[in-house]
Amino acid sequence: MLRKGLKDALTLSEMTKDHKNFELQGEEALKSVFRNHASGIAIITSRTSSGDPIGFTASSVTSLGSNPPLVSVNIAQGSSSYEHLQVGVKIAIHTLDQETLHLAKRLAGPKESRFIGDEVEGPYGLPIFAASPAVLICEVRERFEVEANAVIVATGLTASVSQIPAKPLVYFQRAWHVVGEKISDRD
Amino acid sequence: MLRKGLKDALTLSEMTKDHKNFELQGEEALKSVFRNHASGIAIITSRTSSGDPIGFTASSVTSLGSNPPLVSVNIAQGSSSYEHLQVGVKIAIHTLDQETLHLAKRLAGPKESRFIGDEVEGPYGLPIFAASPAVLICEVRERFEVEANAVIVATGLTASVSQIPAKPLVYFQRAWHVVGEKISDRD
Repeated sequence: MLRKGLKDALTLSEMTKDHKNFELQGEEALKSVFRNHASGIAIITSRTSSGDPIGFTASSVTSLGSNPPLVSVNIAQGSSSYEHLQVGVKIAIHTLDQETLHLAKRLAGPKESRFIGDEVEGPYGLPIFAASPAVLICEVRERFEVEANAVIVATGLTASVSQIPAKPLVYFQRAWHVVGEKISDRD
Repeated sequence: MLRKGLKDALTLSEMTKDHKNFELQGEEALKSVFRNHASGIAIITSRTSSGDPIGFTASSVTSLGSNPPLVSVNIAQGSSSYEHLQVGVKIAIHTLDQETLHLAKRLAGPKESRFIGDEVEGPYGLPIFAASPAVLICEVRERFEVEANAVIVATGLTASVSQIPAKPLVYFQRAWHVVGEKISDRD
C-alpha cells in the first residue's frame, strides 16, 4: 500500500509539473493561481458627496492606456466605497512602499479607523497621505459591472512623485512583501 | 543667483515631498506613477480560429471576483492578439517566476519567435508552457473598449498549480525583478 501510494504521488506530481492535469475548478482554481501571482499595492482615497473622506487598499490598480491616460481598478460592488465612486468623481491613487505599510494595513482595516488626521488636502480637496511615494489624481470615467464586481476606469489628471521607492510593496501568498532584486533589464 | 536657485530647489523638494505640488500632467503623470508601481507578470496564450498559437506577456492580469471566478486583462486594441480574443474564446494565463523569465521576454518579443515548439497541449487544445508555476484556463466573457484599449473579462474554469514560486516575477521601474522578503502577514 505504501509503495502504491508513493507511486501514485510521484505520478501525480510529475503530471502536475507538466500541467497535464488540471485538477482545480472554478473559485478554487482562480484563488490558487492568484495566490501565486504578485500584485502591486495602492491606496485609493476620495470624498463622499457630503465631504467625508473615504479610502481603501487595492491590489487591482492597473494601467489601461497612456493616450489618453487611463487606469483600471477592480472593486466589489458590495464595498462601502463603491457607491461613492460615481462617474465624474475625483480619486487619489497612492503608491506604497515598506515605509507606508502601515497605511496599507490601516486602509484595509475597519472603516472608522482609516482616517485619523494624518492626511493633507490635495487637488480637488482630496485627502492625501503625504508619506506615499507617488500620488495620481484621476477622474472616474466608466464603471463596468460584472456579476457582483466592477471594473472602474478613470482618467489620469495630475501626479506628484516624491521619490522612487527603494522597497515598493507587493502582495503575494496572502502577505505583504517588498520588491526584491532586479534580475534583468527589459532589453 | 546660485543661492536663489538652491533655495527654489529646496522649496520645490519640500513641497513635492508633501504632495502639495502636482506638477505632472496627463500621460507623463500616469507613466511616472506606474513606473513606481510594481505589477505581477503573466503570459497569456490562446489559438486563432485556424488553430495557430498566439500569446503575449501581460502585466495587467488582475483578479476581479471569486464567485463566479473572474479575471481582468487590460490590452491595447492595436495588439496583434486582440482580434483573436473574442467572447467565448479560451485562454491560458500562466504565472511566471525567475526560472521562467525567458518566457516573459520571449512572449514580449517578435511574434514570429514566440512559439518555438516547447509548448505542450493543454485543455481545449491550448498551448501551455509547462515550466510555468501555475496555469489558469479561462473563457473570455466580456470586452469593454475604452479609447484605443480594452478591458477583457474572463471566467476562470480550471487550473493546474505545480509549485509555489520561490521567486515570482514582477515588473518595476521598467525592469524585471523578483518578489523579495516578506515584511508582514496580512493580520
